Amino acid sequence: MRITVCLTDSKPEPWVQGLQAALPEAEVSAWAPGQQPADHAVVWAPPQAFIDAQPGLKTLFNIGAGVDALMQLSLPPGLAVVRLDDAGMSVQMAEYACHAVIRHFRELDVYEAEARAGRWTYRKPRERADFPVGILGLGVLGERVARAVAHFEFPVMGWSRTRKEIEGVRTFAGEARLGDFLVNTRVLVNLLPLTDATRGILNKATLSALKPGGYLINIARGGHLVEDDLIPLLDKGQLAGATLDVFETEPLPAAHPFWHHPKISITPHGSARTLRSESIAQIAGKIRAMARGEAVAGVVDFERGY
Amino acid sequence: MRITVCLTDSKPEPWVQGLQAALPEAEVSAWAPGQQPADHAVVWAPPQAFIDAQPGLKTLFNIGAGVDALMQLSLPPGLAVVRLDDAGMSVQMAEYACHAVIRHFRELDVYEAEARAGRWTYRKPRERADFPVGILGLGVLGERVARAVAHFEFPVMGWSRTRKEIEGVRTFAGEARLGDFLVNTRVLVNLLPLTDATRGILNKATLSALKPGGYLINIARGGHLVEDDLIPLLDKGQLAGATLDVFETEPLPAAHPFWHHPKISITPHGSARTLRSESIAQIAGKIRAMARGEAVAGVVDFERGY
Repeated sequence: MRITVCLTDSKPEPWVQGLQAALPEAEVSAWAPGQQPADHAVVWAPPQAFIDAQPGLKTLFNIGAGVDALMQLSLPPGLAVVRLDDAGMSVQMAEYACHAVIRHFRELDVYEAEARAGRWTYRKPRERADFPVGILGLGVLGERVARAVAHFEFPVMGWSRTRKEIEGVRTFAGEARLGDFLVNTRVLVNLLPLTDATRGILNKATLSALKPGGYLINIARGGHLVEDDLIPLLDKGQLAGATLDVFETEPLPAAHPFWHHPKISITPHGSARTLRSESIAQIAGKIRAMARGEAVAGVVDFERGY
Repeated sequence: MRITVCLTDSKPEPWVQGLQAALPEAEVSAWAPGQQPADHAVVWAPPQAFIDAQPGLKTLFNIGAGVDALMQLSLPPGLAVVRLDDAGMSVQMAEYACHAVIRHFRELDVYEAEARAGRWTYRKPRERADFPVGILGLGVLGERVARAVAHFEFPVMGWSRTRKEIEGVRTFAGEARLGDFLVNTRVLVNLLPLTDATRGILNKATLSALKPGGYLINIARGGHLVEDDLIPLLDKGQLAGATLDVFETEPLPAAHPFWHHPKISITPHGSARTLRSESIAQIAGKIRAMARGEAVAGVVDFERGY
């Protein structure tokens, strides 16, 4: 069994070594043009040329949760695409989202600015009931974030394409219920997969539908947000602010107005980082399970796009 | 039944109205010198003159969790002091502590500074296992904070005077185990009551015992921290930082070095604010229960001081 590793934004060597140690029976190598075709590939945003050079490929393991970059490629029929399911990412998403929700709800950014100015200032406490949090997308990551936010006793809602039941979370399903979900949400956390159906879902119309003082936390993909729509909504006060971890173009271009907008907090696509050892263990386990003819979690449905 | 309200840092009227509405059978009033003595008092840091003018007082209801200010007064024998138990405070403490833990662990303050400078910078993710969180004090508030931190999968420890068992938390009890607790802790969250036994417990010796890169979150009382000990520990790198909500003198004096120290985050004693309607409901419920001869939670043990 041959396994090839093709990563566009990080070094393949630690992955090659880790996979080789986990699967001593396999031949693991970093991809190079001209290399003998492999049975399985471990990839992040590979070029089309990589796919074209792998005629016998059975499985493409994506080292992230989102496979939108892979869905842009021309993939041979019969190739299975498998994404990471969790592998230490969901708790990071929960942390990031709760930090942003709490920081906004408790006005800790305002307190910090006051403290920097040397001022001891009380602000009227706000009511938790006035800050319902809505989670867009209820996969492994969305459900984990929903549970974390619910731990802090916020009213929590969730929206997904197909119906999900999560204890303590009011769930809405399907396009027809998106409006109901939005008008009941004040803090919107996006965890959807990026597909043709969800591209641009965060736009003037949907963001204007949130409760007054709405707040956006985007930790999915930059393509979900119509970036030109956001700043006017913030400037006229329709939205109170936004925490953005992902952008249409990454790294965010130096001249982009998001960098210095006072109501926007930016992080460089790090809300959940791929943890190498957890990911290697998960991929090795799945390769073994597939060899035994067992089904594995995270196989992408090309029709729905995730 | 007469109830009097004596608050030093807020207006008594909303409390008088709320208590009167909850207990229509009682006569509720704001305290004024010369007033007829009451049966129960609802107080925050009252002067000794107030106590001295209440010869028939049965119960002193403190509208906070900490009764250290009351313990400084000369109180008549037989007077019961009852503190708020929770009343919406524990979830606020959990929020505040988790925000501080996550912000430090994930270096979100560093990312924020980088973003302000217009820089898209990755930092190496840190290992959760390297950030064990230790909770000093495992009462209602400490236990709630411990559970919230554990929700994010940090190793969590707790120390208390008497033995407590909390699922998912490694607990230590008694002065003899304090050292073991500290050497296993990197992020220390203080939620102890302030008593003669705990005053100054956060000092050069105890803070130096934390794991390298220790971090202090003090959300109990300023008197727990020997303030002069903190800055040298930060400056020589023994501690990585501190989030402080409480201070020996409040408001924190304008010239205090904590204000502008780059490793100290300050909030103005707001980690958990007393929520009036929850508190009134709790106090009214306790007055009714006591009238029926039932025991109520939160009665202070003068011997231990909380």
